[in-house]
Amino acid sequence: MEGQISQAVIRRLPRYYRYLGDLLSNNVERISSNELSDKMNLTASQIRQDLNNFGGFGQQGYGYNVKYLYDEIGKILGLDKVHNMIIIGAGNLASAIVKYHKFEELGFKTLALFDVREELFGTEINGIKVYSTDDLEIFIKNHNVDICALTLPKENAVAVANKVVNLGVKSIWNFSHVDLELNDSDVVVENVHLSDSLMQLSYNIASRGKI
Amino acid sequence: MEGQISQAVIRRLPRYYRYLGDLLSNNVERISSNELSDKMNLTASQIRQDLNNFGGFGQQGYGYNVKYLYDEIGKILGLDKVHNMIIIGAGNLASAIVKYHKFEELGFKTLALFDVREELFGTEINGIKVYSTDDLEIFIKNHNVDICALTLPKENAVAVANKVVNLGVKSIWNFSHVDLELNDSDVVVENVHLSDSLMQLSYNIASRGKI
Repeated sequence: MEGQISQAVIRRLPRYYRYLGDLLSNNVERISSNELSDKMNLTASQIRQDLNNFGGFGQQGYGYNVKYLYDEIGKILGLDKVHNMIIIGAGNLASAIVKYHKFEELGFKTLALFDVREELFGTEINGIKVYSTDDLEIFIKNHNVDICALTLPKENAVAVANKVVNLGVKSIWNFSHVDLELNDSDVVVENVHLSDSLMQLSYNIASRGKI
Repeated sequence: MEGQISQAVIRRLPRYYRYLGDLLSNNVERISSNELSDKMNLTASQIRQDLNNFGGFGQQGYGYNVKYLYDEIGKILGLDKVHNMIIIGAGNLASAIVKYHKFEELGFKTLALFDVREELFGTEINGIKVYSTDDLEIFIKNHNVDICALTLPKENAVAVANKVVNLGVKSIWNFSHVDLELNDSDVVVENVHLSDSLMQLSYNIASRGKI
């Protein structure tokens, strides 16, 4: 089924998940598509359409059961599984990721950090140890690593990405300012290009006056 | 003209800009749409279409003048202007932003950091001073602040965003894990939701086996 769902819908799912999580923590048990629509700044019909893609969990006259919808979207997003992660590049960005407890709550568990800077070997960030990148091979062989986050300078990113992919890692969360060209097309890459995001902002600033 | 250009094209412009910048620093003077297509993993026809949106800078039999195209896309993206930025929340993410020299090269100049933690007041990150958020009003009145980056916990993000918007800031680069609802519709918001990005990755991991 998922094959036919548009990327636009899929892009919205994490937002639904976040909102429903907020509702849950406020002990809200059910919500109408109209209320959800107000909160999410989407039309009620858009919301019904989106959720119909996944079999539609709403009931006429009742609305959506928040917990049920939250869990179902969680499953669709693969959040019913724990994902083991390593982070390569133990700088500020890695610290920010490791210290943000929400990622672990979502099931993304950072096992280890790696860096080339000797002075960092054996240190810890938030209880997670920093290893030498020379230890990548042995570490990946001995652990079940699902995701590798790349928070290192772009000059080294492509080589390191190909290294971990060759070692069997199948997913990359890429913060390096480069588009990764990987030989293995089975690998899933999610890019966070902060400079692209800033340029997007700048474009919107520049075009604001013209509309 | 910009009004008619699809968001999809606009989303690709920063990538063009990054690639062309790489070419420039490698002293490449011109490039055909075929070569650009190989590099960018888009079809040559897609590239021609994209660039035609902006008047088309290519010449038959010559290709694209790299420097010219780079400058023109830069102008479209508003990168021919300097953007003054402040960052609220002087944690690891703010450090990562301030230390990444590329943002300043692109014209995004961080003037100051703000935080609520007293022990940080007067300290510096990469030469940029950390102020108390109590000083926001006087600082914004005395400086030309174009962009406010929010790298603070989501509990405080909405209140702080509305505060800076009321003080006249027109653009928000939002890293807080919340969608901002602002009263001023003239304000441009660019979100970097890292948890959404991780969920997207997780979705792609989960659906990989099924395709």
